[in-house]
Amino acid sequence: MQTHDYAAASGKQDDVAMNSIAIESALIAELGADLVTRSADIDPRYFTAYNEAPGVRPLALVRPRSIDDVSRTLALCRRLRQPIVPQGGLTGLARGGVALGGEVVLSMERFAGIESLDAAAATVTVRAGTPLQIVQEAADAAGFTFGVDLGARGTCQIGGTIATNAGGTRAIRYGVMREQVLGLEAVLADGTVLSSMNRMLKNNAGYDLKQLFIGSEGTLGIVTRAVLRLRPKLGAPATAMCLVADYDTVLRLWDRMRAVEEVVSFEAMWPSFYRYVCSHTPGVAAPFAGADGFAVLIECATSTPGGDAAQALEACLGDCLEAGIIDDAALATSERQARDMWMLREGLAIDELPHLVNFDVSLPTGELGAFAERCEAALRARWPDIVCLFFGHIGDGNVHIGVSLAELDEALVDELDRTVYAVVQEMDGSISAEHGIGVLKRPYLACTRSDAEIGLMRVLKTALDPQRILNPGKVL
Amino acid sequence: MQTHDYAAASGKQDDVAMNSIAIESALIAELGADLVTRSADIDPRYFTAYNEAPGVRPLALVRPRSIDDVSRTLALCRRLRQPIVPQGGLTGLARGGVALGGEVVLSMERFAGIESLDAAAATVTVRAGTPLQIVQEAADAAGFTFGVDLGARGTCQIGGTIATNAGGTRAIRYGVMREQVLGLEAVLADGTVLSSMNRMLKNNAGYDLKQLFIGSEGTLGIVTRAVLRLRPKLGAPATAMCLVADYDTVLRLWDRMRAVEEVVSFEAMWPSFYRYVCSHTPGVAAPFAGADGFAVLIECATSTPGGDAAQALEACLGDCLEAGIIDDAALATSERQARDMWMLREGLAIDELPHLVNFDVSLPTGELGAFAERCEAALRARWPDIVCLFFGHIGDGNVHIGVSLAELDEALVDELDRTVYAVVQEMDGSISAEHGIGVLKRPYLACTRSDAEIGLMRVLKTALDPQRILNPGKVL
Repeated sequence: MQTHDYAAASGKQDDVAMNSIAIESALIAELGADLVTRSADIDPRYFTAYNEAPGVRPLALVRPRSIDDVSRTLALCRRLRQPIVPQGGLTGLARGGVALGGEVVLSMERFAGIESLDAAAATVTVRAGTPLQIVQEAADAAGFTFGVDLGARGTCQIGGTIATNAGGTRAIRYGVMREQVLGLEAVLADGTVLSSMNRMLKNNAGYDLKQLFIGSEGTLGIVTRAVLRLRPKLGAPATAMCLVADYDTVLRLWDRMRAVEEVVSFEAMWPSFYRYVCSHTPGVAAPFAGADGFAVLIECATSTPGGDAAQALEACLGDCLEAGIIDDAALATSERQARDMWMLREGLAIDELPHLVNFDVSLPTGELGAFAERCEAALRARWPDIVCLFFGHIGDGNVHIGVSLAELDEALVDELDRTVYAVVQEMDGSISAEHGIGVLKRPYLACTRSDAEIGLMRVLKTALDPQRILNPGKVL
Repeated sequence: MQTHDYAAASGKQDDVAMNSIAIESALIAELGADLVTRSADIDPRYFTAYNEAPGVRPLALVRPRSIDDVSRTLALCRRLRQPIVPQGGLTGLARGGVALGGEVVLSMERFAGIESLDAAAATVTVRAGTPLQIVQEAADAAGFTFGVDLGARGTCQIGGTIATNAGGTRAIRYGVMREQVLGLEAVLADGTVLSSMNRMLKNNAGYDLKQLFIGSEGTLGIVTRAVLRLRPKLGAPATAMCLVADYDTVLRLWDRMRAVEEVVSFEAMWPSFYRYVCSHTPGVAAPFAGADGFAVLIECATSTPGGDAAQALEACLGDCLEAGIIDDAALATSERQARDMWMLREGLAIDELPHLVNFDVSLPTGELGAFAERCEAALRARWPDIVCLFFGHIGDGNVHIGVSLAELDEALVDELDRTVYAVVQEMDGSISAEHGIGVLKRPYLACTRSDAEIGLMRVLKTALDPQRILNPGKVL
């Protein structure tokens, strides 16, 4: 067996090439050449985070075809004390899925597909490597809607969305990924297959172990399969863009709108964000493009037979116009118009800003207006020419910030982070609403979690992964 | 300090009186006489489980007035290695909140009340000892609905509903207690106050520690406060009872009804249950009392301004009558009629059956019909005269079973349990949908959870409570 050779090699810490050859050999001996790609042969996409340059080349790439393959990989890595990075579709924004140096990467892409769909119970059983969009399509084909949607739907994998507890634009209606997961299977650090594939909305027989693996970014176990909840199929959506004077009035609009059962999304764009995307999204007809105010994108849809989402949306907007809550409203009269509204909100245009840094924070909905003001003031005090654009889901407390400086280096990024997170900390918010901690936010975890909390996280990490082989350097 | 005396006394295992005096003295020395009740003075309600005779008298009763009181109690108990039982309203059905012998009981009843309500964010911050009904009323007064409702609302406490992850009759609409909890504060076994009082729907900054304390029945920490989610206020409910030929047709009705956004509850009563409650609930006018079939209670309500829940219910029932899915339907035309329908469903009448044993199991909705048949057949094969009544929430997979035998002793209860749970195990269901494991279901945990799962539960227990002072003998 290769164990001894590798263990000897791993003593020489500089000799990464030696490590790499030893671990490659050990993995191939255990799993066979079909499942293991040698370091030198790994395609850069397996070590490139979203929107970034290629990072550190992993020691090896394992692409399991079965749960047993995952189990054997972990058992071997544990024997060798070899760190391992579980990897989904690599669409995360906190670098949680890429190697930092000296790790084996385990990609779930070959363990994909829908295993079964139970229409009576409204559940679907899926493998970790399945892209979100495949789950959405399977749900749709069977007369259901899947509760989570996000921009990366075609690339992100269910295992990754679970490991990062993905959020997206429907959380106010259906909750985040955690609320969709009924059952889960994960492989623990020692190779144990923990199958908790509960299929019911109610199950209180002992600890709800699946919660450990949702949102812990692969640091406590590797998600292999899940039972997901499905929702009744929604009819065609009705979409509108509203113009609102200020954040307090956005709150009044939200207070009215959230009572409407048909609401699926409620997305607010601060004035500077909306002006920017209106003028930088070619080919899109933007409602009230020149106006100064908040733009709010609202989507309604209903599963009720004979229900009329457009009527519900129009009725509420009519009341709000009359009450002076909204200054103007544009209802999408075609799919194209609705898509244009969503394109503005998705705001890909801001990716072209120089040295863009994205933030993803959350605070109670009522405090987001004050937060944005204080945050922008703090940034502008330090960098008078900063571009600072706020937009987000509002109803779930989540706001994104796109920040751009003409010049940027690592020290300035850290200063930007500390400036924003200081305001978040003062206001008792979260430094990561839906993107996770990964590597990028790890230095700032203490801005948002107490010593007692971080202490208990470490207790859990030590209990589940005493040798720290699972995604080391992430979260904690 | 009393530590040494107590430690010496606790060596003599028969000498409970001695233990009791020593622990009383230690607690009074630490906390003062106001917070501590001596064993001999404890009112039996603190050691009496719901619907049972008084059980074992605790060594002492502590009733903290603050989080610090809870922390000091636990720190002391840990030093003394003194087991402690956290206690809410004692309405649980698995004996999770009563002492087994040799424990101190910690009742949260004095740490009660609403701390704050954030209307913009739709959250309420409450103390563990607050009765559920107080939370519901506070929500209502502020223009909201609380998502969980259950029969014991006036007595059960929020801390207990969180510790047991209570379910109830609205889970198909709003989820169980876990889905209502945004933030949580718990005191750990060593007295550490773990305050994770998140107030947002989205927060992915590190592990979601609150999940550890939801549904773990006080074995990993003691819940002191929570931030709960509120929902837009529902208008007046519309209620109907339907007569349906068989379980397959109940499934067809559910398939139609679940798409209706207004549905809050969907409760099915098997024919023998419905016949029994119709003839044993005096003063209640039961629709189709003599008929043979499933009775399904449906409640609809909506928060949409101008929305018409009654119209939505009637429209769907009209379609179902036309499609031959339901044989008959009775719409409640007064609050009194609706209450009567709920009284039948709550089925308090069956409590009068001799030696009633209650079960609370879950299986995927589509399999509950087959389960009930197999379960009843298994019971009847052993006890031909058994009374065996099925009813439950269906849409969330939860069915309750009331079982009655003319004669019963402990060995027979165990045989009943094993008979029912063998069928649950064969069909891969849960032996506890919403009541928890407590003491009563602890011997059967392995019928529903694997060795790997129970192993990981033990790892968590050891990591969080190495001296096993928190609610010992419960769950694991």
